[in-house]
Amino acid sequence: MTAVDFSQFVDELATLSGSAILPFFRTNLAAQDKNAGGAFDPVTEADKAAEAAMRHLIKRTFPAHGIVGEEYGSENGDAEYVWVLDPIDGTKSFICGLPMWGTLIGLTRNGIPCHGMMHQPFTGERFSGDGKRAIWRGATGKRSLRTRDCSGLSEATLMTTSPLLMSEENRERFRRVEGQARLSRYGGDCYSYCMLAAGFVDVVVETNLKPYDIVAIIPIIEGAGGIVTTWDGKPAQDGGSVVASGSRAVHEATLALLNA
Amino acid sequence: MTAVDFSQFVDELATLSGSAILPFFRTNLAAQDKNAGGAFDPVTEADKAAEAAMRHLIKRTFPAHGIVGEEYGSENGDAEYVWVLDPIDGTKSFICGLPMWGTLIGLTRNGIPCHGMMHQPFTGERFSGDGKRAIWRGATGKRSLRTRDCSGLSEATLMTTSPLLMSEENRERFRRVEGQARLSRYGGDCYSYCMLAAGFVDVVVETNLKPYDIVAIIPIIEGAGGIVTTWDGKPAQDGGSVVASGSRAVHEATLALLNA
Repeated sequence: MTAVDFSQFVDELATLSGSAILPFFRTNLAAQDKNAGGAFDPVTEADKAAEAAMRHLIKRTFPAHGIVGEEYGSENGDAEYVWVLDPIDGTKSFICGLPMWGTLIGLTRNGIPCHGMMHQPFTGERFSGDGKRAIWRGATGKRSLRTRDCSGLSEATLMTTSPLLMSEENRERFRRVEGQARLSRYGGDCYSYCMLAAGFVDVVVETNLKPYDIVAIIPIIEGAGGIVTTWDGKPAQDGGSVVASGSRAVHEATLALLNA
Repeated sequence: MTAVDFSQFVDELATLSGSAILPFFRTNLAAQDKNAGGAFDPVTEADKAAEAAMRHLIKRTFPAHGIVGEEYGSENGDAEYVWVLDPIDGTKSFICGLPMWGTLIGLTRNGIPCHGMMHQPFTGERFSGDGKRAIWRGATGKRSLRTRDCSGLSEATLMTTSPLLMSEENRERFRRVEGQARLSRYGGDCYSYCMLAAGFVDVVVETNLKPYDIVAIIPIIEGAGGIVTTWDGKPAQDGGSVVASGSRAVHEATLALLNA
């Protein structure tokens, strides 16, 4: 069976989810707390509305496909094609009113990520890729995404959402990389990975990712010439501790320091 | 002498600087290093082009006014009216391709901030205030800015650009506040203060600010009902260590912890 081009359908999902989310952005909605008594993990009505709308469109259009989503769990997860959705990646940025969040729409075929989009409806940007190429589209047109060929960590810009999200041991390991990088910047969630694909960030190091945080990102970064693995160098589609780099040199140096 | 309404002129400056900056955003310009051998402090051609253009328009329109800018220093700084300019506040975000930077255009009269704007030309947003009121304008229209009446730190969202920018002693003091806040978020520069004015962030704590980092921000936050002081409760227009809060309760609790 040959691969199908789902680009147009992914655009439809992005338009649909953006319409569901934007009316909630920068309104004073009450953030819910998923883990009562635990870490602050806001979920918004926008998150639920967008995922429900995308699930509805996927089921109507491709009833044989599976779906894994942040809000409503997994259905038919061993199908040939499985959609992996995070309607608002970066909920903390979202509730702070910052535009550093996005809708992640990923597709796996036989378990391998084959298509991904990050949609930022407030800035009107779409980053997408299929592992072979990646593109940005926005108000000013369309551009190919290409990672930067950074020669080593001493020249590298490093991003992570927050070292506070890491366990103490992982934070120690992260600090070794941070100590060698030229510039380190926090915040960003999915937006950081897209800036890596665009050649403005050289390495992103994170922990505790879920599959829906990373499946959509992998075909974008790989399509732009970058590398995504776990901290121990394995495929990253199941999430966990993840490193994404724009060049092989930076990736190897980062893995070496994390595992030193 | 009665106060003059400079709103329209500030809009002209914003339009002009935005036109100078945007062509450089997300291009692979070589970042220069101000402090050779020191901390990484990128300055871009965009920064210089925008400040030069704004200075030219100010001098042509109001030759008696003074100007203080990040790139080209101070001229006629003891005039009745002095313009305080930071063409790209958030240069690190800028070089990472992130939209979390902005152009700060402040005006003091007899040394007191009386008008301020934060312009984000990529997202097309203008946040402005005169100490009595503050407004947001963007693609979807115009809204009043109003801070959130947060009852205390345990309910508060805290932002800082990065704890790594603080001295060790100040970082310790900052951590005491962070330990009490409901949610803490890094990154942001001027964008954080604007989200505080808009009621989505409750407190911003920073150190080592220059006057051009904060003069434009003060009339926006005060116009939205918030409070800006130094860590020891004094006027913040000279920069240094600054706290901005959306409510009196959060401001007092933050100052108390910083000075405990």
